[in-house]
Amino acid sequence: MPSKQSEAVRRHWAAARLAMVRPDAEQPDDESWGNLTAEPREVDYLETSVETYLETSVDADERALPAMWAVPKHSTEDRVLLCMHGGGYISGSMYTHRKMFAHLAKATGARALIFDYRLAPEHTHPTQVDDATAAYQWLLAQGISADHIALAGDSAGGGLAISAQLRARERGLPLPAAAMLFSPWVDPEATGESYGTNRDRDPFFYQESVRLFAGMFLGEGGDPRDPLANPLFADLSGLGPIYIQVGGDETLLSDARRLDEHARKAGVDVRLDVFPDMPHTFQMAAGRAPEADMAVRAMAEWVRPKLHL
Amino acid sequence: MPSKQSEAVRRHWAAARLAMVRPDAEQPDDESWGNLTAEPREVDYLETSVETYLETSVDADERALPAMWAVPKHSTEDRVLLCMHGGGYISGSMYTHRKMFAHLAKATGARALIFDYRLAPEHTHPTQVDDATAAYQWLLAQGISADHIALAGDSAGGGLAISAQLRARERGLPLPAAAMLFSPWVDPEATGESYGTNRDRDPFFYQESVRLFAGMFLGEGGDPRDPLANPLFADLSGLGPIYIQVGGDETLLSDARRLDEHARKAGVDVRLDVFPDMPHTFQMAAGRAPEADMAVRAMAEWVRPKLHL
Repeated sequence: MPSKQSEAVRRHWAAARLAMVRPDAEQPDDESWGNLTAEPREVDYLETSVETYLETSVDADERALPAMWAVPKHSTEDRVLLCMHGGGYISGSMYTHRKMFAHLAKATGARALIFDYRLAPEHTHPTQVDDATAAYQWLLAQGISADHIALAGDSAGGGLAISAQLRARERGLPLPAAAMLFSPWVDPEATGESYGTNRDRDPFFYQESVRLFAGMFLGEGGDPRDPLANPLFADLSGLGPIYIQVGGDETLLSDARRLDEHARKAGVDVRLDVFPDMPHTFQMAAGRAPEADMAVRAMAEWVRPKLHL
Repeated sequence: MPSKQSEAVRRHWAAARLAMVRPDAEQPDDESWGNLTAEPREVDYLETSVETYLETSVDADERALPAMWAVPKHSTEDRVLLCMHGGGYISGSMYTHRKMFAHLAKATGARALIFDYRLAPEHTHPTQVDDATAAYQWLLAQGISADHIALAGDSAGGGLAISAQLRARERGLPLPAAAMLFSPWVDPEATGESYGTNRDRDPFFYQESVRLFAGMFLGEGGDPRDPLANPLFADLSGLGPIYIQVGGDETLLSDARRLDEHARKAGVDVRLDVFPDMPHTFQMAAGRAPEADMAVRAMAEWVRPKLHL
């Protein structure tokens, strides 16, 4: 039975759904998603900006992405979690996800860099992949070695943590030590069977709305099978170890299962944990719900040796 | 007419009241008060601890108070707002008030030091005054000169910003440049006439419950007219300039009015602004409600010349 505290995540999604379909319902503010997470405490937060060196961004203003270091007390300075927030590529920010990624960083004993990639519909695919890759490149340029970097991402950010690696591989960059995915959204076609089997358990992610989000993200004429937008169609061989966590009640459960299977077939060291009765990105209840704390702790224990911690 | 956004503060108090009188109602978490405030952005947060040197605290652990620097980008390093959070001396923390005080610091162009004084009922008066005075002394020991420090406090923290100065004066310390009080609670006897006139407008602060809080804070046999617990019975002469803001709908309106009058009679340079239709500590809606933003801006404009900014 799910904890009382984890129910807050489910209520969040139900309220988000209501706000989407009924404009007269109370609209959540930009940052309210983050209210699910307790303050991890003993973590410092320093805003910075991530310089990018993309040919596509000529304007100086466009070459910097807002970002934030979350620095747990006593963490190891040269170990970094590069964190990609969720929000369907149209919402979320370093503010909504500050506390959740700080919980993970604190449990790991590493710093987290949380950055704001540019959002759809203003910016369509592959802007997000380019921004995420740029943030990774910036970290390398700061002197952090690839094997001391792990990627972390939830929902859309989970998909991004895979695509950014594909882009990095394309560019001949060394790959990060590991990737940690919370409820990754990887299929813009929304074809997973859990859209049917979990339809009554997931209050937000209906097949129709996920396709709507995908359309905004891909833009007009965008291909939902573009391997950079849909890792299920990408060659994942050569990627570092991946740990996927997903809620048993999600319609995105099949995204996690299929990514796990697809990565395994490509020879990737992959681990999948399904958390029974849990909703999408239940780890946002870190510091409150025991399931979230357990999940975060499991991620941290898994990644520590991979970062030589 | 109050803005739609400011109504969130009123709803917060109504929910807090409900949680108090009906244990079966949804209980707010320790940090939810802070959800009222938008992220000010471009502010760094660094946890620290404030060493105290009180004879009463022999144990090393008891000599340090948890605290947090809020450092707006481009702020002047040696100008500091020493911030005392509200919560009836029994609740609130540097986490609930991080964003509100950071808004004030950002508007002022100074750093804020927000600290956790010890709370009632575990610790009764004058522990809170001693802790606040110790935090002020610590700031001076860091080399920040008194005329570069302004105190800021809301609700119980507003009262504390006065008592800490009285204690500092007792100890022969130089006094801070100014004090900014948001809806200060200064009367533990709860005798203000606005308990009657605003009874139907204030969803939380009933005379009976305020006396209950006062009892927890003063402890058994505590005197509600002790000048250090009740500035209305203190000699305020020699204090620096004070700016008080209060909501027109509060039952604590008379606390503000009487403090203004009492300070004025003592020759203090005092300013009082009553914000029509506003609830208790409406400034918590900073970044969302126009009234809160206007209030914070007015405070900042008032204090800047006093800090030679």
